[in-house]
This record gives sequence, structure tokens and C-alpha cells, in this order.
Amino acid sequence: MDNVIIDFIDKPELKNPVLIEGLPGIGDVGKIAAKLLIDQLSAKKIISIYSRFLPPQVLVTDEGIIKPMQNEIYYVKTEKDHELMILTGDYQGLTSEGQYDLSYGILKLLKDLNVVKIITLGGYGVRKIPEEPRVLGAATGEKLLSEMKKYGVHFETGHPSSGIVGASGLLLGLARLFNLEGVCLMGETHGFFPDPQGAKTVLKVLSELFDLKLDYTSLEKISPDLEILKARLKELEEVGNEGVPDSAGDLSYFA
Amino acid sequence: MDNVIIDFIDKPELKNPVLIEGLPGIGDVGKIAAKLLIDQLSAKKIISIYSRFLPPQVLVTDEGIIKPMQNEIYYVKTEKDHELMILTGDYQGLTSEGQYDLSYGILKLLKDLNVVKIITLGGYGVRKIPEEPRVLGAATGEKLLSEMKKYGVHFETGHPSSGIVGASGLLLGLARLFNLEGVCLMGETHGFFPDPQGAKTVLKVLSELFDLKLDYTSLEKISPDLEILKARLKELEEVGNEGVPDSAGDLSYFA
Amino acid sequence: MDNVIIDFIDKPELKNPVLIEGLPGIGDVGKIAAKLLIDQLSAKKIISIYSRFLPPQVLVTDEGIIKPMQNEIYYVKTEKDHELMILTGDYQGLTSEGQYDLSYGILKLLKDLNVVKIITLGGYGVRKIPEEPRVLGAATGEKLLSEMKKYGVHFETGHPSSGIVGASGLLLGLARLFNLEGVCLMGETHGFFPDPQGAKTVLKVLSELFDLKLDYTSLEKISPDLEILKARLKELEEVGNEGVPDSAGDLSYFA
Amino acid sequence: MDNVIIDFIDKPELKNPVLIEGLPGIGDVGKIAAKLLIDQLSAKKIISIYSRFLPPQVLVTDEGIIKPMQNEIYYVKTEKDHELMILTGDYQGLTSEGQYDLSYGILKLLKDLNVVKIITLGGYGVRKIPEEPRVLGAATGEKLLSEMKKYGVHFETGHPSSGIVGASGLLLGLARLFNLEGVCLMGETHGFFPDPQGAKTVLKVLSELFDLKLDYTSLEKISPDLEILKARLKELEEVGNEGVPDSAGDLSYFA
Repeated sequence: MDNVIIDFIDKPELKNPVLIEGLPGIGDVGKIAAKLLIDQLSAKKIISIYSRFLPPQVLVTDEGIIKPMQNEIYYVKTEKDHELMILTGDYQGLTSEGQYDLSYGILKLLKDLNVVKIITLGGYGVRKIPEEPRVLGAATGEKLLSEMKKYGVHFETGHPSSGIVGASGLLLGLARLFNLEGVCLMGETHGFFPDPQGAKTVLKVLSELFDLKLDYTSLEKISPDLEILKARLKELEEVGNEGVPDSAGDLSYFA
Repeated sequence: MDNVIIDFIDKPELKNPVLIEGLPGIGDVGKIAAKLLIDQLSAKKIISIYSRFLPPQVLVTDEGIIKPMQNEIYYVKTEKDHELMILTGDYQGLTSEGQYDLSYGILKLLKDLNVVKIITLGGYGVRKIPEEPRVLGAATGEKLLSEMKKYGVHFETGHPSSGIVGASGLLLGLARLFNLEGVCLMGETHGFFPDPQGAKTVLKVLSELFDLKLDYTSLEKISPDLEILKARLKELEEVGNEGVPDSAGDLSYFA
Repeated sequence: MDNVIIDFIDKPELKNPVLIEGLPGIGDVGKIAAKLLIDQLSAKKIISIYSRFLPPQVLVTDEGIIKPMQNEIYYVKTEKDHELMILTGDYQGLTSEGQYDLSYGILKLLKDLNVVKIITLGGYGVRKIPEEPRVLGAATGEKLLSEMKKYGVHFETGHPSSGIVGASGLLLGLARLFNLEGVCLMGETHGFFPDPQGAKTVLKVLSELFDLKLDYTSLEKISPDLEILKARLKELEEVGNEGVPDSAGDLSYFA
Repeated sequence: MDNVIIDFIDKPELKNPVLIEGLPGIGDVGKIAAKLLIDQLSAKKIISIYSRFLPPQVLVTDEGIIKPMQNEIYYVKTEKDHELMILTGDYQGLTSEGQYDLSYGILKLLKDLNVVKIITLGGYGVRKIPEEPRVLGAATGEKLLSEMKKYGVHFETGHPSSGIVGASGLLLGLARLFNLEGVCLMGETHGFFPDPQGAKTVLKVLSELFDLKLDYTSLEKISPDLEILKARLKELEEVGNEGVPDSAGDLSYFA
């Protein structure tokens, strides 16, 4: 089996789409944001991506239908004529090699589809509940970097110090090989539970970038109990920082 | 070495065979059922499947003959003219990648052999000794799903919640890539020992589907001591659910 | 890098050589035997086999020269005109896939070199110090099996029950794919330390098979202290059989 | 994705350059030495080497720019007309296979670039703070070996007894396949912290070999606190030698 298999469900004509990536990771910031975008923009699924580096199992839908593990790409042309492709999925690659193969395979696909820019979404673990979570950024080049600053994205010297792990990092790191460029937007997050606040924070940047009207009320349903979260954070504080995700990017489940 | 090597022992002419898969897994439900089918239908071995993702060792038969680790396909045309191919074997692939490669390689083979449908067999762990074990199902499409309901196969919303692990899942999940369709039949089982009751339960569905007359008395020999089984289950209950297989599918040995 | 790289040092003309394999394994029976053969027959190294599945390091000879990890093939034409090739090495493949790739790659090489028969050597762990260690055997076919019985090789129903692990098994298990045949000779051994007694026992069979005059005095140097060995065995007996190698074949170091 | 990807930033004309390798390893001796060479000789980066066997993440520079994990080759023509290429990087390959693939891929590149000789740098763990650290060596052939002796490089029978692990070893071990030759220079080191003393010791040999004028003052900044180091060594002495790197070469982080 090829390392990565691209399965087209639909082939819309594409001019110069932007890819927004939101796969599972720290606080699931990226995945939560991607899901909200797909739902509210009524984006349509156009591509399934299978890989021998995803878990060797299938999901079963509520209707009893078998669905292979996959990454998925959705497409929508917004009211303001922005072409958005949204990449999300059940898992990231299970091994280092799988991470590289998936990101590389997806970049090759994006190049074929005339994608002009990549925006990856992730969480930036700050080890507490951030009062007003900010969005930190990192980019493939100077120009994009200063462009993003206009939208309130912060760039801090030496952060994230440990780099960006997983697809959010690799899609941008390998972009150079495909003459692509992009930026990673990281919402500050406690990082221990799915964090809709972190997702909201990056979504606000995207809504400005692409003139989107987004309704965030659905995020409230997935907010963890604040008391439980605080207790958990206090507990961790007492035992020191061992095991606390301390850096931006994805892949909290990745060992 | 290629990831998967197909070694034909015989090449019968095939019109539209159905593949029944029963590899080792939870309660060995699938493997026990496959073995009984092969024995009672006098199915003939036609294919050995070797893989570098199987354990790096060989078995020695009672006669002192060396036999490489393998998956095996048997063939039989039933009295009622059903063409059945039965897939079983010593092990499933040892790694995630190996699981995918074996399932993908087998699907390619099935396509070449004009297989029209795939039925995978597995166990569905229920954490107790089921009084009247049922058969749960999941399928690649709506049509097969409703067809199976006629044979008493249950489809429950949200089950198996954790999906189907291993070949029983992947053979169906990747079937779409080969324009193949199929169904997974999962016998309810405690899942801790080889479970002939779980196997009997899926065999009954198969016997109706293909008009087979099966004798289940050989299953009694492999039934575990009920008292030991009960003690073990009670023990596990007391320590909570840790380590108890809770989902359908195969691969109990797969870490 | 290719999975296996064959590096010819010399290319003697070969008519119908027999390959004798002795790689590291249980009690190092095979490797000790191979080394003695090479030394006493003055066999000449003709092939280095490198692989990305061997440990990623090099050895340094006493002269300060760097030597990559490898499997090695030596060649000798005996006084009685037997053409022998002897396969030994530092390690076996580190992963399951590596085990398969090395064995497969070596078989391909053997086929190219007109090898007619493969004899693999290993230890058969018996969990005690065998008084008169026997040689157990397993073969690829009936004919070889009965041929070996004439030389005092034992074939016991159901032994080795756990099969033969590593190159000693795989070289024979995959031989069918190359129309090759062979036999595995396993010397009974305690299996905990390099065991020259186990090696001597298989060497005696080989010396009869190929009319070799072998001097076993060099083996005495590598015999472990009997008292230490007995103490270790007693210790293990008390804690049960956990961790005691109980089956034929190689690969004691293989996790 | 290919296992190794070579990304040229610049293509200077090369006649007969020597490659000096200094990747992370024991005491980071090689990497510290390589960095000092690059800085003081103002070597220019000409090649990025990416691999799916490096960690699946990216670094972020102080300016917020994303930089993929990589090995890097720098180039300089010295005042005395020596052409030096310096190989360094963030990490070595994460798996055995990755180690082999990276070294093999780099050797192929070196052959294409007309490299005539390879000098790999590493640390040689001596389990104490060496008073006057020596440089031990190992080479691909006799001639280079005796040449190095003139520069004060020591060759000790049976050292390093456990061989040379990682790129410092493999680049030389596989060199034969590309008709390349080389030597490994190992500075004696305690091996527990980045060790500028060990680096200085190998740099002195290089400065003689290539007529370089090097200023070692920058090394002082990275010296660990001597008291902490002594305490740590004493601690380890008391618990025995478990976990203490005892052999030459690289790859302290490699499990």
C-alpha cells in the first residue's frame, strides 16, 4: 500500500485556494476551529486521505456504516469569494515517518490544486487558564510575518522555544520544497482538555482575514467544567511541570 | 522482500466467490469460526500469503516440516453452489503499517479473483459471559446493512463505539478503493479466552446466508472451564475495566 | 539505502555449494559452530552483507580499522570436494521486517550462486545442562528429513513447539519461494551463555555429513564456569520459567 | 517522501573538498567543534538535508521564521586553500534505519561533490573529567591511520571496544561502497554535558591538519559548572557504571 492514498470525492475547479489545517493536537485547538469552520461555512468534503501510518482500524457511523481512518479536505467558496480548503481528520500520523509522509503527500496534493497559502492552526500551551488568550504566530517568511501582525498575531522572540510538532509544523517546514508559503496560528491554551477558548481565539483571526461571520455559541457545549480544570491544573502545579505540554503546535497524543 | 507475497498453491476457476475472513482476534471468534468452516466444508487451501510484517519465525509441523508464518486462503464450492473463500492464519500484521499492507494486498488479490463480497468475522467484547450472544454488524453500505438485518444481525447506534480494529475492519474500510463491498459480523463474547460460543453465533448467520449444514459439536472441546472464566471475569470487575477489551473486532494480541 | 547490500570481495566459481548458517542466537550455538568451521577449514571470506536493519554502528578492529556491522559469507572446497559456504555475522536483523529482508536477500543471493541446499544451525533450549546433548532437526521436506535421521538427528513430534525464530527459521521458511530446500540442526543447550557443548553436538553431524576432520579443543576456551552456570540455572528454576528460552532456534538477543 | 532529501542552497565549484562531520553525540564534542569551525572560518551554508527519520517538528527562529529539522553542510575555502565542507545539524536519524539512510544519502552526495576524504568527530567517554584529554582515532585504512599518528592521534588496541555509534561510525563504515576513505577523531570526554574541552582537543588536531588559526575563547561560555559536574560524576560512581556512556562515538541521545 502506498504510504498516502488520495481519494477524490469531488473535483471542484480551483483558482487560488488557501488551505486551513486543523488536526488533533494540544487542546484540540486546531481541530475544534476546523470543525466550526466546516459547519458554519457549509464546506463540502472533497477529498479523503488514507495512510498506512494512521491507526489500523475503522470507525462505524451511527448508521452502522464503516468509515476508514482518514484526514479529510473540505472546500467552500465564501460569500466574499475566498476559496477555502479545510484539512482536518481523526488522527495525525502515528510515527515520525508517518508524520513526514502525510505532510509531504498533502503538500504535493496542495501544489497540484493550485493552493497559494497554508494556514495551520494549533494550541500554545501556557500551563494555566489564559485570561485573554492571544494568538502566537510563526511563518515561512518575513512578508507573511508582518502581514499577520496587522491582524493581532503575536510573534515572540524564542517562542515556541521547543518548535512546532506535527502537521502544523511540517506542512510549513516542507512547504519550501513545493514553493509554498504559510503561517502557523497558535491559540494560547491550558492544553489539557479540548479547549474551545483557544479555538475561538484563532477563529477570530481567520474571520478577519477572510471576512467571515462566525457564530461561536456551539463552542460552549464542549467547554470543560472550569472547576475540574482548575483542580487539575493546581494538581499539576504541585508536582512540578513534568508532563505539561509547554510548546506550541499539535500532537498532544503523539508520544 | 515485498511487503506481501502471494503464493498460489492452486488456481481454481472462480466466478463470483464471497470471501469470509476469520483471523485471530478478540475471543478468537473469527479464527474459530473460519476453522470450523474449513473443516466441515472440506475447503481446500489455494493460497499462502507471506509478509515481512508477520513474526520473523517459522512453525514446525508434527511431522518435522517447516512452515512459514502465513495467512491462508481456502476455497470450496458448497452443495448449493456458493463459492466460498475462507481467509485465516496464524497472526495478523505486527505493526500498524503491516496491518494496512496485508489488508491492502489481500484486497488487491480478491479483486483479481473476482470476489464480489467480503464478510469479516470478529468478536464484540461485552465484559461478561453473554447468555444469548447476539451478532452485531457494520457494513460498507446501506444495502448490505438492511440485507443483513433479515438474518438477525443487529445494528446498534454508536456500536462498536471504538470502531473495528485490524483486518476485520481494514478489509472493509479499504474496500472502497477496489469497488468492493462487505459486512463485518461480530459475535458477542467475554473476549478473554478462545470463545466457541461467540464463534457459533456468527456461524449460525453464515449457515443461513449460504445454506450450510454445520455441526457444532467440535466447538465443545475448546470451551474454557466456565468456573475459571467466571472467576477471571469477577477479578477484572473488581479492579475496574482496565485492560478489558471493550470493542468489536479483532486483534486482541495487538498492542 | 537498499534494505540489504551485497558486497563481493571475491567471486569463486561455484558448482553446487551447500550453505551452512551460524548466526548469533540461543547459546550462540550456531555462531560458535560456524566460527570453528571457518577456522579449521581455512574458509575464505567472499561476501559482506550490509543492512539498514543491523545496528547503526561500526566495529573497530584491534588495528584501529573500521569495520561495518555485517553478515559474512565464507567459502571453502573441502578435501573431499564438498563446496561449503558458511554464513555468520555480528548480529541478526534488529526488527521483524529486517529479519525477513535479510533472509530474503540472502536467499536471492544463494539462488544466484547455485546453492543447492541450506543447513541452518541453532540451539534448542532445554532449561538445564544437557548431559548428552542431542541434535534436533526440522526440514523443508520429507526427503531431507529422513536423510538426516541417518546421521542421528532427532525429530520429535511437537518440537520445537514454539517454532524456530530468526534467520535459522526464515532461511528455510522462505526457501520454497526460491525452489531451495534445507534443514535446521538444533543442538540442545541450556541457552544462557555461549555454549560450546551445543556447538560441538551439531558440528559432529556436519563432520559426518561432509567428511570433515574437526578438532574441538578450541571450544574449551569459551566454556563458561560450570559452577556459575549451575547457580544461575538453579536461581531461574526457583523463580519459575519466566525468561527462560524454551524453544529451538536463534535470536536470544531479539526482543 | 524520499527517506533523504537534498536541498541545495548554493553550488560552489568544488575540486577536492574534505568533509568534517560534527553532529550531536556524546558530550556534543563533534557538534561543538563543527560550530566553532563554521563561525571562525565564516563557512557558508550550501546544503540542507531533510529526512523523514528526523523528529517530526520544526524549529522557530528568533525572528519567528519556521525552519525544518535538518542536517546542514557548510563550505569554506581556507586561507591556505583547503576546501572544507562541514556537516552538522539538529539531530541524527531517530531509528536504526534512519541512521543508515542518512549516512548513505550523505555519502552519495559527497561522492557527487568530489569529496576526497571524510573526517568524523565524536566524543570518547572516559567516565571522569580527563585532565589532558587525548584524541583517539580509527580509520578506514592503514595509510590514513599512520598519517594521523603524526598529528598526535592515539590508536589503542581494543578501543573503542564497543565500536562507534551513529553517523561518525556509519559515514566511515559505508564509505567503502563509494570508494571513499576517512578517519574518526574522538576527543576524550566525561560525556555528561556539552564538553567544550573535548571539542577543543579535536579542533587542535584539525587546526594542525589544515593550517587553521582558531580562537577557543568562545568555548568557555558553554563550559558546565565544574562543581556540578564533579558532583554528578561522583554520584554516578557510587551507583556503579550503569548508564554511563563508555564508548567512543556519537549519539548520546540515541536509545
